[in-house]
Amino acid sequence: MNLSERVANMEFSPIRKFTTKALEVEKKGKKIYYLNIGQPDLETPECFVKAVKDFDNNVIAYQQSRGDDELLEAIIGYFKYYGIELTQDNILITNGGSEALNLVFTSILDPGDEIMMAEPFYTNYATFCEAACGCIVPVSTKAEDGYRWADRELLEGSITPKTKAICCTSPGNPTGCALSLDEMRIVGQFAKDHDLWIVADEVYREFVYDGMAPASFGQLEEFADRLILVDSVSKRYSACGARVGAAISKNKDIMDGLLKLAQARLCSPTLEQRGAAALYHMDPSYYDEAREEYRSRRDAFYEEISKIPDVVCRKPGGSFYMMAKLPVEDIEDFLMFMLEEFDDNGESVLFTPAEGFYATPGLGKDEIRVAYVLEADKMRRAAELIRLGLEAYKAK
Amino acid sequence: MNLSERVANMEFSPIRKFTTKALEVEKKGKKIYYLNIGQPDLETPECFVKAVKDFDNNVIAYQQSRGDDELLEAIIGYFKYYGIELTQDNILITNGGSEALNLVFTSILDPGDEIMMAEPFYTNYATFCEAACGCIVPVSTKAEDGYRWADRELLEGSITPKTKAICCTSPGNPTGCALSLDEMRIVGQFAKDHDLWIVADEVYREFVYDGMAPASFGQLEEFADRLILVDSVSKRYSACGARVGAAISKNKDIMDGLLKLAQARLCSPTLEQRGAAALYHMDPSYYDEAREEYRSRRDAFYEEISKIPDVVCRKPGGSFYMMAKLPVEDIEDFLMFMLEEFDDNGESVLFTPAEGFYATPGLGKDEIRVAYVLEADKMRRAAELIRLGLEAYKAK
Repeated sequence: MNLSERVANMEFSPIRKFTTKALEVEKKGKKIYYLNIGQPDLETPECFVKAVKDFDNNVIAYQQSRGDDELLEAIIGYFKYYGIELTQDNILITNGGSEALNLVFTSILDPGDEIMMAEPFYTNYATFCEAACGCIVPVSTKAEDGYRWADRELLEGSITPKTKAICCTSPGNPTGCALSLDEMRIVGQFAKDHDLWIVADEVYREFVYDGMAPASFGQLEEFADRLILVDSVSKRYSACGARVGAAISKNKDIMDGLLKLAQARLCSPTLEQRGAAALYHMDPSYYDEAREEYRSRRDAFYEEISKIPDVVCRKPGGSFYMMAKLPVEDIEDFLMFMLEEFDDNGESVLFTPAEGFYATPGLGKDEIRVAYVLEADKMRRAAELIRLGLEAYKAK
Repeated sequence: MNLSERVANMEFSPIRKFTTKALEVEKKGKKIYYLNIGQPDLETPECFVKAVKDFDNNVIAYQQSRGDDELLEAIIGYFKYYGIELTQDNILITNGGSEALNLVFTSILDPGDEIMMAEPFYTNYATFCEAACGCIVPVSTKAEDGYRWADRELLEGSITPKTKAICCTSPGNPTGCALSLDEMRIVGQFAKDHDLWIVADEVYREFVYDGMAPASFGQLEEFADRLILVDSVSKRYSACGARVGAAISKNKDIMDGLLKLAQARLCSPTLEQRGAAALYHMDPSYYDEAREEYRSRRDAFYEEISKIPDVVCRKPGGSFYMMAKLPVEDIEDFLMFMLEEFDDNGESVLFTPAEGFYATPGLGKDEIRVAYVLEADKMRRAAELIRLGLEAYKAK
């Protein structure tokens, strides 16, 4: 009577690992700036709760396994704005982008099959991949290069005969690296030449800065037959707790496979789908305000963190994360110092150690991920706390 | 570029397979009695929607991966009524009982590992098991025996060295077979002697009839270290579309494994958890009314179906399903006849062919599953339509 080997060997989420410790410390009176979880503080648009509250059916019944018509149509409308034409058959509604990834990995990976992705990557990809009995082939990137990875030579160096897919997160979590459409074309051509599926996780699509236009692999029609898009309302609409996402493809085989798995879990939640439909109907001007807010937060943190000697940080182009390489040997040790020993005027900061975002052992030990989900002045203060913490840590 | 073998080989849900056809037929004016899906028509208690509408936070934020405190406490209270003492650490909130099963199978099955279960079984177990790269070992049961399976000799005949768990659904879907506490003890002792996990899917717990008391494997403290309970609000509270369930165990290893998987998918939906907490707080007297309603439906259908010559049907003790063996060779052929050719006063009926509920090839070809989710007089009429249909089918 034991666990499956792959689950026994899994790690608990490195993103959530130190939250309990931080909450303990807070109970003792220290104020903590939480930069560890990508939970935006922006308000969820009112139309979400309004749509939920307007629900007036007496029975909370099963919905279609592939999702409610109303939500499917809203998603079709959303993508049309980006020149991507979809039909209902191209979309499966899921419990967040998370379930989409879970179902996609299960649909394409048999035991021992591999999926390529740039590291550092969103740590939960590893769990979904292991649950599906597959393996990750990491394409290693560097802080000094701003973690860029859309490079044909780099990709060719990592592929193996067992590689069945390439997973592309753009804008990226944890790096903030956002691909241009030209870079997507390089990756797409690589996938086509090696006959790989492209799994494109684009849940931060609108969060790109410095004049960059939101881009999608879906805009490259030449790769449509191998493309699986992952979408979600969580970040775009600040509705993480709604757990509504989608897996999208014009490839009928993958949509059939996904639907078979989705039928087994019956459907996505009824009420949250109503709310999500309202969100997808929102005018694109909504993103302007959110984008400007995140940009100012990014700039504030970047400006402060760049002042610290020996820190490596390149200004990222998208999402609301950034990575930084700190002049310490063991980030977890520094993090525990920040929580347990350090404070400045009773304040400290919690970030995520980056090691859990790497598949290659030993990488990321001196890097952190930061989610810029607090207001700009708080982000500035958080970076200052890291600077003061580093000084105190070295003086120890 | 192809699908994983196990997903490519999966079937679409046999429960939902003929719904599209039935809807087409209805568009042409025929009235169909839908007995194929376990979607109750009873109203969801008002407290569910009220709790959701009372939600007044401006941000729909991530919740704890294991579930909201409020819902966890409500579940603890619900189980206390049955003499089962739980703590928050024993519970993981999931997206319906479906996700609980999915996570449990992934947590205990490595490629090639087996899980035993009586067949016919809830067809989606097969999908969850295949997704986890495991296999089902069926314990075959018969219509003539009322599909009873809690028999030591029967179980000993099916176990193999690769069997890691036994999955017990009581009250049963699709058979309606409900285990007594004594029968659970037989199964539990078998599991203990062979060092198996017990996965007990008890989502119809309160729907037992003819004076039987609701029973749970959780009441047998001697098996607590190997027991994983699956729970859900879907059927008990007529809230299928809420997608709130739970995996429950006093075994710390399995709860750790489940939590690792659950952290990757972040959390269950915020609003539906609020509603579900209200449901779990309901007074147990609520079940009396629902139970009496289902009993009258069962009796109505059973009385009518028993009148048909050469039909084998034993009155089931629980859930809201029953099986019947019909005097035809190929149920799917008969079903298509009922949809396309037959009607009585413009009416026909849709049931589920049972073959998809069996793992052993060839079994169930002459059996149907019926969900008694319509009012008693409609259930009576539906059985009459089957009788008239059989007469017409034979006369062809």
